[in-house]
Amino acid sequence: MISSNGVTKPFWVNEVYGNSRYGLLSTAIIDQQSPYQKISIINSVSYGTGLLLDGCWMTAEHQECCYHEAIVHPALTTAESVKRILIIGGGDGGTARECLRYSEVESVDLVEIDGLVIELSQDHLPTLGQNVWYDPRLRLIVEDGIAWVRKVPDSNYDVIIVDCSDPVGPAEGLFNRSFIQECRRILIPGGVFTTQSESPEASRKIHLDTVQLIRSLFEYADPMYGWVPMYPSGWWSWTFAAIDTQRYLYPKPNRVNTIIDTCEIWNPRWQSGAFDAIPNSIARVLKND
Amino acid sequence: MISSNGVTKPFWVNEVYGNSRYGLLSTAIIDQQSPYQKISIINSVSYGTGLLLDGCWMTAEHQECCYHEAIVHPALTTAESVKRILIIGGGDGGTARECLRYSEVESVDLVEIDGLVIELSQDHLPTLGQNVWYDPRLRLIVEDGIAWVRKVPDSNYDVIIVDCSDPVGPAEGLFNRSFIQECRRILIPGGVFTTQSESPEASRKIHLDTVQLIRSLFEYADPMYGWVPMYPSGWWSWTFAAIDTQRYLYPKPNRVNTIIDTCEIWNPRWQSGAFDAIPNSIARVLKND
Repeated sequence: MISSNGVTKPFWVNEVYGNSRYGLLSTAIIDQQSPYQKISIINSVSYGTGLLLDGCWMTAEHQECCYHEAIVHPALTTAESVKRILIIGGGDGGTARECLRYSEVESVDLVEIDGLVIELSQDHLPTLGQNVWYDPRLRLIVEDGIAWVRKVPDSNYDVIIVDCSDPVGPAEGLFNRSFIQECRRILIPGGVFTTQSESPEASRKIHLDTVQLIRSLFEYADPMYGWVPMYPSGWWSWTFAAIDTQRYLYPKPNRVNTIIDTCEIWNPRWQSGAFDAIPNSIARVLKND
Repeated sequence: MISSNGVTKPFWVNEVYGNSRYGLLSTAIIDQQSPYQKISIINSVSYGTGLLLDGCWMTAEHQECCYHEAIVHPALTTAESVKRILIIGGGDGGTARECLRYSEVESVDLVEIDGLVIELSQDHLPTLGQNVWYDPRLRLIVEDGIAWVRKVPDSNYDVIIVDCSDPVGPAEGLFNRSFIQECRRILIPGGVFTTQSESPEASRKIHLDTVQLIRSLFEYADPMYGWVPMYPSGWWSWTFAAIDTQRYLYPKPNRVNTIIDTCEIWNPRWQSGAFDAIPNSIARVLKND
């Protein structure tokens, strides 16, 4: 990796997903094994510093907005109150950062199973977490999210965000009925739940199973579609759920005004479009549930 | 490529775009040089037979619907009449196939500069063109689209579809002012024009320039966003334009009924969402034009 003149020569870092792959020209920084997974921090030529877990792209400095704005703002602009937030996963800090932009937020519990993800993100991806690590509203809990939600009293959080990796390895249980059921229990009636729900193209069955599972446990639930170029197929989804109404469809103007000027992707029209852009073949399956 | 036991071993076929790349595990079939470009036909493990021009992914059997439904149906369901269609490019036959599903269509002029693309598509990608090559409504014209539109009388076509590759090599002129101006001239007043307008992520400047150019020449023009996993970043756009109203936003129910049951991606709600899902940073630029 180091050429004879001492300059690091870029090479391809790839995520192989089935029979396709996505690669970024990069220089390596770190490759570490935690008790849970292999964590790689790379320096990509186009997207800045990036993070991979077990060889799968998670995030990168100049591409992270596509994911973080999409998972956070449709929930934070629409929940009745946003005082108490729970994030499961999200150890890179990007989701917490977007949540803490709202002054109404009083506490964010960030429950990440892998402390090394947090440490390496703090050291190498400072633009993701920015000041959140020093924000007194953030409570950092290094623990299994599945164990955490079991201990939480009923109707405890205004917003619950599951910002996890694919349903293999440490994140597998975050796609299970019992975990989602606990999330439903600890969400207040006017709250919003959201989870990333995989690609409708590259992992169609997991995507459909996830949407259908959430629909079976919450009164209202709908998928929303967007883009994360570094994820398999680039075509991604998040599923939002609520108890009292489809409230995740209706951003509150005062909260919109707080964030809209600095968003790269999100605005209320984009959000409305992203909920409408259900591919016909997926809509057919969901309609017939 | 052929292992000792005579079995073709799959290998990666990549499109490198800047500092990122997208690869499909494939077995090679053909690599030919036409007067215009290198044409490659590969057999991908996941997406069936695929086509590359000058090393850039164009289409593949099991991924083509994302592109062809998106470029065709928002135009064909909304134009006042769809009797006379012009396709510039589209030598694989997929766009013509989607157009010819409407019984109201009386003629499709398909103007493809590279006859070898048509030949190889007919031979190796029969599921793309299907029966269109034998449909008496199809007129196949092997000619430069730029030269063709100059010869066409005013207000001649109901729908004009520019189904071209990136603006380098033979497709470069299809992104120029003079060509789009000719398209405006030969479109009937109740007609719809559309072109693929590149990725808002991987080629943001070309995308914005294309939308702004079309807006400067047509009375109404708007970008629409969707997904083509094999294209750079997976995040793609098409720009629709019209003379009399924003008619490309309003599908006619009788035409919708003709096609909706067999579409994989397109339906009127998806279309509406795809027009709304303008990323905030792009919306800001376009609003300030």
